Amino acid sequence: MTHYSELDTPAVLIDLDRAEANLKRAQSAVNKAGIALRPHIKTHKLPLFAKKQMELGAVGITVQKLGEAEVMADAGLADLLLTFNIIGAAKLKRLKALHDRVTIRVVADSQECVGGLAATFTDPAKPLGVFVECDTGMGRCGVQSAETAVALAQKIIAAPGLAFAGLMTYPAAGKYQAAAQWLADAKAAFVAAGIDLPAITTGGTPDIWHMDEAARIATEYRPGTYIYMDRSQVAAGAASFEDCALTVLATVVSRPAEDRAIIDAGSKALTSDLLGLVGHGYVVEHPEAKVTGLSEEHGTLDVSACATKPKIGDVIRIIPNHCCPVTNLFDRVHLIRNGNLVETVDVGARGRVD
Amino acid sequence: MTHYSELDTPAVLIDLDRAEANLKRAQSAVNKAGIALRPHIKTHKLPLFAKKQMELGAVGITVQKLGEAEVMADAGLADLLLTFNIIGAAKLKRLKALHDRVTIRVVADSQECVGGLAATFTDPAKPLGVFVECDTGMGRCGVQSAETAVALAQKIIAAPGLAFAGLMTYPAAGKYQAAAQWLADAKAAFVAAGIDLPAITTGGTPDIWHMDEAARIATEYRPGTYIYMDRSQVAAGAASFEDCALTVLATVVSRPAEDRAIIDAGSKALTSDLLGLVGHGYVVEHPEAKVTGLSEEHGTLDVSACATKPKIGDVIRIIPNHCCPVTNLFDRVHLIRNGNLVETVDVGARGRVD
Repeated sequence: MTHYSELDTPAVLIDLDRAEANLKRAQSAVNKAGIALRPHIKTHKLPLFAKKQMELGAVGITVQKLGEAEVMADAGLADLLLTFNIIGAAKLKRLKALHDRVTIRVVADSQECVGGLAATFTDPAKPLGVFVECDTGMGRCGVQSAETAVALAQKIIAAPGLAFAGLMTYPAAGKYQAAAQWLADAKAAFVAAGIDLPAITTGGTPDIWHMDEAARIATEYRPGTYIYMDRSQVAAGAASFEDCALTVLATVVSRPAEDRAIIDAGSKALTSDLLGLVGHGYVVEHPEAKVTGLSEEHGTLDVSACATKPKIGDVIRIIPNHCCPVTNLFDRVHLIRNGNLVETVDVGARGRVD
Repeated sequence: MTHYSELDTPAVLIDLDRAEANLKRAQSAVNKAGIALRPHIKTHKLPLFAKKQMELGAVGITVQKLGEAEVMADAGLADLLLTFNIIGAAKLKRLKALHDRVTIRVVADSQECVGGLAATFTDPAKPLGVFVECDTGMGRCGVQSAETAVALAQKIIAAPGLAFAGLMTYPAAGKYQAAAQWLADAKAAFVAAGIDLPAITTGGTPDIWHMDEAARIATEYRPGTYIYMDRSQVAAGAASFEDCALTVLATVVSRPAEDRAIIDAGSKALTSDLLGLVGHGYVVEHPEAKVTGLSEEHGTLDVSACATKPKIGDVIRIIPNHCCPVTNLFDRVHLIRNGNLVETVDVGARGRVD
């Protein structure tokens, strides 16, 4: 058996017991709330975990990129929601090819986007399901009002090869109540317009344990990060450090000064994502250490507060601020149980940029 | 011929005329300064550009990781400097294998690091060249004093299978004068100790055009970013936007509000690196636009100041804050001349994390 500490660094470790516990806890919560779970695979990018999520009760998966959808479809995942506007001939062609072999639905937030879909999908016998994306407070994509949502739904309904699937939102973290109110108002506008709303899908790990609130209006939840959790989710109150399943294994390569340690994990291992936090991660073995800076290949630790200071050659584990982009930086991740290596797997949907 | 605007997005474009001009300008500057150029390949990660740099007069290349060294050695690059402490049995074994087939030298900043090297490399007939890394103001790796540098050099000299190669530093941006003074003081200490200093190697694109100052004491310069340049180098005064050879091609996928545009390039295309800047890149076609936020797959633009606002479906080019980690996010980059695609190449040393 290989203990994780024998692996070359930097490397990504996934604690299987923790990941599986996180998956089960979320599935129980959606079951209790009486809605559906459609996990976002952007966090793990691994067909094996997508299949595990399905086994535990997910109704399908969420992807953000056609490339991710292609990898997951190839692996046998058959019900996909792609939560990104598909624009342009090249991507519409790939979407068509996917639609020919799996159930895939998409979102739209503009007449232009719906126009491209309507021109590509023309078969009333096999319509493409399209959700209207709603900006419920995130300030990213999405229609800005219930009236615009209704108008866009009408355009989808008018297209013979499209089917109106409902409303989709990605709510701002901590704003789940405002998002639920936005969606409730939109639902009222759809009722007034005489349009059936087949589904309302929302998401986000930061507020996953407030799902009951979301479930008053939403019919489906799409969390991603919940499988691994990370330092930002701990800060949001959605997890404890003991729930975090993904760590970056690193080696202390220099102790140039009494209060400074340098590790071989920099921004190319941990990413520069701050997500509002101070510092670049949580050091499991030295919780008092601060990851004060990252170069591409170096992480700088302030170890002044550490009772026992790390030594050159020590291997340590870092819980990153944001686990999702970390899995995009590694070709492979190591699956661990009880500290021992179970399997090293290729990150199937890594680098699927388009 | 394929124009870049026909390529699927997001994608990385490399303007060959600009990259080649940047390479030639730097080679001329080092020639004039009378020192050697040893480019850092972390920026491009491409054997073809490493070879181009050698053709133009570089004495060898710099790498940061064993994996990068292995890719470059496989491609025929034969003189490598690895500017990272090599710690641990697995990495020492790989270093040994590289040393058996190419000229590779490394750095060390501790007795522990030198100890590992000395135990691995024992053949006086083919010693491993080792530089002492000096912290001249960066606050990362490196010995903290000239006295420690001398002591470490003595340990290297005492090891039969090692050869003392000189001093290496990566100076803090804008602190090239302080770094040069540090190295001059160290040189005096080596003279006093009767130890020959075969070379002094420094680097950094931000201060590349102050090379004359560095050349008063250094014998070699190791810039990386200079081949592509980026928004941080423009901010540092080392380049203009017209010098920037790398852009991220993106599509406008949403215009949810009058002042907001969303593109399909987020932190998985541009990285979250800020490097002290405000905003996440420079939009070539809309210089008045601000890239105010990045999610993994979405970039949010404030287009309120744009005379002509981008439309859904437009393709635009972003000069990122930091080009080096961007090339680590894409399996392939497109080489462009006069706006047309010349070749799409695999990023050979992408993702070489260890």
